[in-house]
Amino acid sequence: MSVDDAKIGIVGGAGPYAGLDLAQKILEQTIAEKDQDYLPTLLISTPDKIEDRTRFLLGEITSNPAHSIFRNLCDLKTLGASVVGIPCNTAHAPAIKDVFLEKWKQSGKCLKIIDMISETIFFLQENCPEVKTVGVLSTIGTWKAGFYPELLSASGYEIRTLNEAQQQHLHNEALFNPEHGIKVQAHPVTEKAKNVLLEGIGILEKQGVQAIILGCTEIPLGLPERKISEIYLLDPGLILARALIREFKPEKLLPWTWEI
Amino acid sequence: MSVDDAKIGIVGGAGPYAGLDLAQKILEQTIAEKDQDYLPTLLISTPDKIEDRTRFLLGEITSNPAHSIFRNLCDLKTLGASVVGIPCNTAHAPAIKDVFLEKWKQSGKCLKIIDMISETIFFLQENCPEVKTVGVLSTIGTWKAGFYPELLSASGYEIRTLNEAQQQHLHNEALFNPEHGIKVQAHPVTEKAKNVLLEGIGILEKQGVQAIILGCTEIPLGLPERKISEIYLLDPGLILARALIREFKPEKLLPWTWEI
Repeated sequence: MSVDDAKIGIVGGAGPYAGLDLAQKILEQTIAEKDQDYLPTLLISTPDKIEDRTRFLLGEITSNPAHSIFRNLCDLKTLGASVVGIPCNTAHAPAIKDVFLEKWKQSGKCLKIIDMISETIFFLQENCPEVKTVGVLSTIGTWKAGFYPELLSASGYEIRTLNEAQQQHLHNEALFNPEHGIKVQAHPVTEKAKNVLLEGIGILEKQGVQAIILGCTEIPLGLPERKISEIYLLDPGLILARALIREFKPEKLLPWTWEI
Repeated sequence: MSVDDAKIGIVGGAGPYAGLDLAQKILEQTIAEKDQDYLPTLLISTPDKIEDRTRFLLGEITSNPAHSIFRNLCDLKTLGASVVGIPCNTAHAPAIKDVFLEKWKQSGKCLKIIDMISETIFFLQENCPEVKTVGVLSTIGTWKAGFYPELLSASGYEIRTLNEAQQQHLHNEALFNPEHGIKVQAHPVTEKAKNVLLEGIGILEKQGVQAIILGCTEIPLGLPERKISEIYLLDPGLILARALIREFKPEKLLPWTWEI
């Protein structure tokens, strides 16, 4: 595979809409005037093979989704991916991420895997220098894994999160509800799901956050705004899209703006 | 590659938003309650490698996009695609399609390539039995290639299309305008682009059409309606999404409805 065939790779399917959302954000963040100006991408989406990340972290299932993610990384590499993103916050929990990264290291193959969580904190530092207090909305799996608060603390931020009952409610109603949750109804997101997300924002706002990380790739589908009443809303998927373009072809990256 | 690894393949990049749009329509047309219920898909998008289909058909460039499409078909097959769709109407012009199909036949590989154009006419016959007069909106390349009118006539339909100047205007302004065309601004489609499409609908309506084929994969991004004033709007990308599910796992296909 020559350098000429290099592509941006996406491990999709976790969940399926998040993979597409990342692919779309890569298009939107690319400087382009015609079809041929866009970057080559490769999206593998095997939702049927990637176990529920939250259920694994909670110990409800024993099969680690890391193995399917590793397999997708191998397939992406086979078809020429040179840099890869995994648009699933929960899959970045160390219990999952460390396993697929270790397997990848053992394989000896070359591929730049972008860490969406580190990129998000890096983006916050670069683009919101005045921010000191940060909130997080996520799945209950990401909440329990606690990697966002841990990394944010290590970078000197004050952290605010929902309490467990509030976070469980957001997980169940906005994301996983089988009728109105974003996992099954993403285009458009239902009013019910959106309202549950706005409730979450309201709770964090009362705790004085200046920025909120939308720490599940489905949440920004319901909250596409980049700011709500002076609070920055950080979309890790959007940040990942920009990081992938930056690594693949930096001259194609649109300048950042808080306006949409 | 075992049967267990079979996937739906998408030749994307022609144009880039059309590939994503097909992937999204596959999700939307799938019966699913959770991530793991969705079907495995593989999207290769190499817009930088696939020459402009219209410019090739008009003789402005000599390199046939069929060769890049063939290469993408090979890559999709390598990673386990068992059925493939190509969400680009213009790429179904015989001058392009016959070339990649002949190369594929020569390769001796096994893969079901769904013909979006034939599927659209089949869908029209099945779902709109009262329709006799059909209009087409498309790129100027598809207009000049004339395969929609030809196939529709062969199936007994009366055809209405824009005249060349009207079709060129729609091509230039709704699709390819470097500032407001759908090729560069798809989410959301600009008001300007949408109005140009509605003008096209109005012209065909005056000619008495009962159904209109939105014969460029970008057009339905600006006209997501399934009916406008009793005229059926047929989206070949949506029909292709349904055909791919039907071929891959028919029990997962949502029943059809004209309501959205």
